[in-house]
Amino acid sequence: MEQLKVIKIGGHIINDQQALDDFLTTFTAIKGLKVLIHGGGKVATELAQKMNLEVTMIDGRRITDSETLDIATMVYAGKVNKTIVAKLQAKKCNAIGFTGADGNTILSKKRDVEEVDFGYVGDVVKVDTEIVEVLLSRKRTPVFCAITHDGHGQLLNTNADTLAAELAIALAKNYETELYYCFEKKGVLQNITDEDSVIKNINLENYQDLKSQGIIADGMLPKMQNCFHAIQNGVQKVCVGLPDMLQNSNSLFTTISN
Amino acid sequence: MEQLKVIKIGGHIINDQQALDDFLTTFTAIKGLKVLIHGGGKVATELAQKMNLEVTMIDGRRITDSETLDIATMVYAGKVNKTIVAKLQAKKCNAIGFTGADGNTILSKKRDVEEVDFGYVGDVVKVDTEIVEVLLSRKRTPVFCAITHDGHGQLLNTNADTLAAELAIALAKNYETELYYCFEKKGVLQNITDEDSVIKNINLENYQDLKSQGIIADGMLPKMQNCFHAIQNGVQKVCVGLPDMLQNSNSLFTTISN
Repeated sequence: MEQLKVIKIGGHIINDQQALDDFLTTFTAIKGLKVLIHGGGKVATELAQKMNLEVTMIDGRRITDSETLDIATMVYAGKVNKTIVAKLQAKKCNAIGFTGADGNTILSKKRDVEEVDFGYVGDVVKVDTEIVEVLLSRKRTPVFCAITHDGHGQLLNTNADTLAAELAIALAKNYETELYYCFEKKGVLQNITDEDSVIKNINLENYQDLKSQGIIADGMLPKMQNCFHAIQNGVQKVCVGLPDMLQNSNSLFTTISN
Repeated sequence: MEQLKVIKIGGHIINDQQALDDFLTTFTAIKGLKVLIHGGGKVATELAQKMNLEVTMIDGRRITDSETLDIATMVYAGKVNKTIVAKLQAKKCNAIGFTGADGNTILSKKRDVEEVDFGYVGDVVKVDTEIVEVLLSRKRTPVFCAITHDGHGQLLNTNADTLAAELAIALAKNYETELYYCFEKKGVLQNITDEDSVIKNINLENYQDLKSQGIIADGMLPKMQNCFHAIQNGVQKVCVGLPDMLQNSNSLFTTISN
């Protein structure tokens, strides 16, 4: 099987024009097949402010009402996705932007209302990789934002980490797939105040310890769950760290294994 | 050669949810290969108002400064394009959204500043139909908004009528291509106050008369120029009228011929 790198970048890179440009140069330099998934960053919040919309957060999650979904669609699928695609084209990486609605690639289901009504938030239920694979075979590079659809005409906001994991799992059926989560730290840190205290390897065994000690907590918990979900479902390698890890295998980063 | 319909819809359809839904039902019912191009409608103007941005118009054309381009990208490539794609998916038309930057399909050049500086407006210089043709061969339906790029990382706002003509011309090399401009009238009218006074056929000969008599004027002039440009460059058939013309060949509409 051919090798494929599925790479997710978060808001801290999108928020910083220089960081985004540096990342896209690194991304373009990666040889072989690759897919990019990006989050939204603070552009959506800024636009909501300009439009005097309130952003409601519950447990650190944005509540997506109809107007917030419009903003997410405009910013993630419009401005951020197309800016990235145009910048990649300028670097001679022949990128092509996607939401999950495009080509029906990522079907999701509106999250059921339980304790919290998250609004127009969708959880991935089905990934169709046919068109992505056709494009990869023609040296095009798919670039996904985290907007999906329910198949009944409704767009839905989806967690970008989860979307990256599900896409990597689906692609792992036909490619030797590696999943890279680029974020603002060198990796998962043993000591949050020491940037270099990267835990090089996390597996199911030490993960339980790290959780019970409170070393892995808050926002890192769902990210780790996505990592384990991927590694347990056919993805060959899952790494978390700075974009440096994509070009320098000697750099510090965290690898998640079974 | 296989037949292909290239269909452009304007703002009046996008502005009206019921009209859009009706159009998309008609569009889905069209058998055979098809490509959709859409304009933006008033959503962009409304968003600019919400953000307290002034829209500058010169000679009926929007001047695209950097903030206006952001809005055009968000609205056309984000909200409008993805809403159309999701709605088509719900109707089992497997649509996939495009700007000209995606797959480097439509390269444009920022318009030179002469009497007027139109800002970030691009005129089409090159169309690469490879990916569009691959998708058509796999029964996917490309849906273009009129945002393009200059190949150096700059997105550009492009006239949707022109984009439709250029795309149809490029596709006419490999398909028997028909181009349909759907707008708010039954066709080009002999008498602007009589909705049924449709001129059934316009060719280069009567076009000169219609122009000199002032029957074709203002916004119809560039539309006619796009029609003639297409018909003179390999497109087999060019029609202007209501979406009805797509399902009922007995309905009134205008055909443009050489």
